Amino acid sequence: MPKDHSRPATAETYKRTDRTKVRVHQRADYSRDTVHGILDEGYVAHVAFVHDDAPVVIPIFYVRDGEGLLIHGSRKTRMFTTLAQGVPLCATVTHLDGLVLARSWFHHSMNYRSVVVHGVAEQVTGEDARMEALRLVMERIAPGRSETSRPPHAQEMKATMVLRIPLEEAVAKVRTGGPNDDEDDLDLPYWAGCVPIEMVHRPPLTSRSMQVDAPVPEAVSALARPA
Amino acid sequence: MPKDHSRPATAETYKRTDRTKVRVHQRADYSRDTVHGILDEGYVAHVAFVHDDAPVVIPIFYVRDGEGLLIHGSRKTRMFTTLAQGVPLCATVTHLDGLVLARSWFHHSMNYRSVVVHGVAEQVTGEDARMEALRLVMERIAPGRSETSRPPHAQEMKATMVLRIPLEEAVAKVRTGGPNDDEDDLDLPYWAGCVPIEMVHRPPLTSRSMQVDAPVPEAVSALARPA
Repeated sequence: MPKDHSRPATAETYKRTDRTKVRVHQRADYSRDTVHGILDEGYVAHVAFVHDDAPVVIPIFYVRDGEGLLIHGSRKTRMFTTLAQGVPLCATVTHLDGLVLARSWFHHSMNYRSVVVHGVAEQVTGEDARMEALRLVMERIAPGRSETSRPPHAQEMKATMVLRIPLEEAVAKVRTGGPNDDEDDLDLPYWAGCVPIEMVHRPPLTSRSMQVDAPVPEAVSALARPA
Repeated sequence: MPKDHSRPATAETYKRTDRTKVRVHQRADYSRDTVHGILDEGYVAHVAFVHDDAPVVIPIFYVRDGEGLLIHGSRKTRMFTTLAQGVPLCATVTHLDGLVLARSWFHHSMNYRSVVVHGVAEQVTGEDARMEALRLVMERIAPGRSETSRPPHAQEMKATMVLRIPLEEAVAKVRTGGPNDDEDDLDLPYWAGCVPIEMVHRPPLTSRSMQVDAPVPEAVSALARPA
């Protein structure tokens, strides 16, 4: 009988299931804080679902709201019509943090932080809840943005579906640090180390179609860190 | 009868199939050059497969080799044991290029370049072909790296599986430029524009475990562009 790796959820951790157990278990982290931290740094989740017996994986903007990921899009897309049926999905968020160069080909690696979520999406219903979800999307793009742009009118709301992916079965996987070369390889005459990689925001570009004299909002300028 | 959107492959383009047609068709690009260009800038693909009736999506390092994506990993992983069975997969590569801030919530968007590939992976077999695939991985990390690190010995090769995902059914999706606001919204008193986002390499960090006096290879230093 295969070993049972499952563990129940706690206030601090997600449950561990057969599909969220990680082979290199030192890299697995079920803590809600770790998972939330990784999710809150990202914009794009890769969401997979099954369509006509084959997997499909689509990148989509998300925002975390407590123990859920909110995604939204046109009701007409294959992704939203499929997910709204309550089919199993998997949503993965990955930050690539660097290339790891070892003495041996075998130990070359990447530094990264990823979260894999398994579950079923629920439609967010009720105009207030839907509007609040979209407000969170705006605030994720830039704090205050929901107040300095036009909220959706009825027709825009009608065209939009909002789904919530519950964070119940989730696991983070993290690799940091330098190469893990074999002891025997350490004196080989090769450089070893890593090349950090970062996602960087550049200073905002104002639309050429501006007709009014509106300055760049402070929160938008603040997205670009000093180089 | 539903309209047939399919088109055969040409020397310049991938075939268009029901599953690679894109709803907002202006954003779809089936040209091999566009697809190759996007793939060649990335390191990580999100590969989806079906396991126990549910989709799973896992980030993995890849390198493009002609009309294929090479991935490699431990034979023991669920991903490699599953994919080696010849099941349908989907591999998606996404570059987030910016946040697009419109006058209306509705027209907020992202600039991005993505490629979605559908297909079935084939095992790369034969020690020469497998070694050559891993050499391409090293060269993708940094040109020349295969010559300045130790090639795998027999046991390392035995532990490693190499798969090739053929590029036959692939489509790029690209959004660029500023917000596409409604004509009626252009005079609203809100700033509009975009915040570019880039993936940036930082200068290499040398491993603390260095025992020899090996300088940072020029190709590794060159990965970090001047800020």
